[in-house]
Amino acid sequence: MKEVLFRELLNPNESKLLLIVLDGVGGLPDKSGMTELETAFKPNLDKLAKENETGDMIPVDIGITPGSGPGHLGVFGYEPSDYPIGRGILEALGLNINVDKETVTVRCNFATMDVNHVIIDRRAGRISSEENQRLVEKLKERIKNADGKKIEFYAGKEHRFVLVIRGVKGNADVNDTDPQEIGKKPIEAKPNNESSKECAEIINKVYAMIVEALKDEPKANTALFRGISKMPDIPTMEEKYMLNPCCIATYPMYKGLATLVGMKILKTGETIEDQIETLKDNYEKYDFFFFHVKKTDSYGEDGDFAKKVKVIENFDSLLPKILDLKFDVIAITADHSTPSVMMSHSHHPVPLLLIGKHSRKSDAEKFTERECLKGAIKRIYSKQLMPLMLASSGRLKKFGA
Amino acid sequence: MKEVLFRELLNPNESKLLLIVLDGVGGLPDKSGMTELETAFKPNLDKLAKENETGDMIPVDIGITPGSGPGHLGVFGYEPSDYPIGRGILEALGLNINVDKETVTVRCNFATMDVNHVIIDRRAGRISSEENQRLVEKLKERIKNADGKKIEFYAGKEHRFVLVIRGVKGNADVNDTDPQEIGKKPIEAKPNNESSKECAEIINKVYAMIVEALKDEPKANTALFRGISKMPDIPTMEEKYMLNPCCIATYPMYKGLATLVGMKILKTGETIEDQIETLKDNYEKYDFFFFHVKKTDSYGEDGDFAKKVKVIENFDSLLPKILDLKFDVIAITADHSTPSVMMSHSHHPVPLLLIGKHSRKSDAEKFTERECLKGAIKRIYSKQLMPLMLASSGRLKKFGA
Repeated sequence: MKEVLFRELLNPNESKLLLIVLDGVGGLPDKSGMTELETAFKPNLDKLAKENETGDMIPVDIGITPGSGPGHLGVFGYEPSDYPIGRGILEALGLNINVDKETVTVRCNFATMDVNHVIIDRRAGRISSEENQRLVEKLKERIKNADGKKIEFYAGKEHRFVLVIRGVKGNADVNDTDPQEIGKKPIEAKPNNESSKECAEIINKVYAMIVEALKDEPKANTALFRGISKMPDIPTMEEKYMLNPCCIATYPMYKGLATLVGMKILKTGETIEDQIETLKDNYEKYDFFFFHVKKTDSYGEDGDFAKKVKVIENFDSLLPKILDLKFDVIAITADHSTPSVMMSHSHHPVPLLLIGKHSRKSDAEKFTERECLKGAIKRIYSKQLMPLMLASSGRLKKFGA
Repeated sequence: MKEVLFRELLNPNESKLLLIVLDGVGGLPDKSGMTELETAFKPNLDKLAKENETGDMIPVDIGITPGSGPGHLGVFGYEPSDYPIGRGILEALGLNINVDKETVTVRCNFATMDVNHVIIDRRAGRISSEENQRLVEKLKERIKNADGKKIEFYAGKEHRFVLVIRGVKGNADVNDTDPQEIGKKPIEAKPNNESSKECAEIINKVYAMIVEALKDEPKANTALFRGISKMPDIPTMEEKYMLNPCCIATYPMYKGLATLVGMKILKTGETIEDQIETLKDNYEKYDFFFFHVKKTDSYGEDGDFAKKVKVIENFDSLLPKILDLKFDVIAITADHSTPSVMMSHSHHPVPLLLIGKHSRKSDAEKFTERECLKGAIKRIYSKQLMPLMLASSGRLKKFGA
């Protein structure tokens, strides 16, 4: 349905909505013939799947393997391909750097060039994180402004750092300066359109300042820029759904993604228990809660089938505490699949469980990839989940008379 | 996903992909209550369906019965309604006529008109194919060029022939000259846009030349033109998917359709065994193979349920030879359904079997319309099959970080 028509149907009420993302929980069978979800002992999830609606959800599109950015935009109700998130922004979010609409972010490598400015090492010999810290301090000290814009530097791991430029009004549609191979010079930043001219100019200016600041360094005597980007111009969830949303996540990147869509980030601890405490403490203050469980994905990426199973079991054992809070609607799903046997994100759909008052029951017996296929939701795309949660909580009026 | 974003994800590798189209294999129950696929003894297909992913595929759109052109464009990954294939082109492909981007093709009827040029028989009394041959030879002899363009004629069956005009640069968006009923004069060709002006002019010129050439014929003294068309301007599969594709088909029309999307046409024999030999001989040279089995459709069109079953059984018995070749991904499906009980193409979805390393198993027990409904692929549109085959072979990078 067209966005403009959809917004006319919004009908805010007192209901409480909870979106639980078990990051990468979708899997594939290992040699036992069963997936992580099929292996885990999870009586609570299975009982809920039996008594509520389930489905099979495509994160972005058929055959597409989503990164964390597109995967989450989808479950937040956005068409992921409408809002590409630049690598610079994602890196900044990962480092917990505050960004606004006038902030340009750049992923940078320290690198080595010869006297002719030809790159001879794209990673400056993979310098240590400590050495990186020292170099970033040097840059911070020497470069504070350029053309009246505030310039900031943030150290990452090894040779990586982030450059932040504040107060840039136009776009940041500018090429990478990284030539991607040694034996070439860094590429000049050029704008891809009129509104990115200012950005390109300041990028080139900052580059020259960095080269000047690092000229006496034996290894890290230059920097290569990639993913020059601003925040996508994205409506907030409040604008889109008339919700007052918050985020309970343990990792910076997910907090950053939540910030992009206007969620309030709640302070929480490291464990799922901590997150549930935070949920409980803030139950009255918000009406939409994004609850992010990271470790299912981490162990999937590690190829650790058994530990991924354990995280599912741990979550399941804590689920009654969440149910006690009496949310009106709870969705439990994933941003994408991360099968342990692939040790990476994959294109496979994710299982979806939707708990609400007006559920259509089906033949699904458990919360697994295979059983959720039988559910009444059948197949949806991630961006269709929010309308379903809103409908289930009475937050959408009838369309037409 | 937008085409431009999709192309950025392409990640060519060494994998081998095989698309087997059992033309029109989808069916409906006869009085036994079972479809052709449910009747056939096909242990290999059934075992594969149990161990791999299955689904239900919509060739073009819900309720739409596809012709061979749209049906195949869909499985090749194109939106069929974006690339209408003119009847002239389809007729030319069916007659194995070589066409390029400057070729205009026209489906023609020999017809009879009176002295006032009023059509009195749209099929010239359904003259014999031999008589057609004689008339076409006469046209060939008398009309070789018009306005410096090369003119060709090809005899079809009974009153049908194809007119080919070479070297036309613009479009061929021109009306039919066939008035569709007797008692009317042939319609003058008029361009629907500026770039089709040259085409319309030459069509009218060739029409006058045909009338002159046939003026002494008692029956076939004129011709009616339909489906004036050029090849659709369609990207090749190499451009679209970075694949090096080939076609192993026994019928000219399918080779023609494969040519449209840039496949290399391999010489092969008349039987499925011959086609498998060709597949084996060319395994190293290509990375995408389109393998077309015609007879399932032919017997469906004939209403011969038993013979359609036999073709399925024959294919099944030969399938192990194909599996021996160790393709990375194999899709077995159809371009449309051709239920024997309907003796025609139908709008019904087609069963899909996708064999690859990272399959999600499901409850499907057999390769039939009904069992494939239970598969993990659930329902897709034909044009979504290629992204799925590419994803299953690792040929698509992650979207976003």
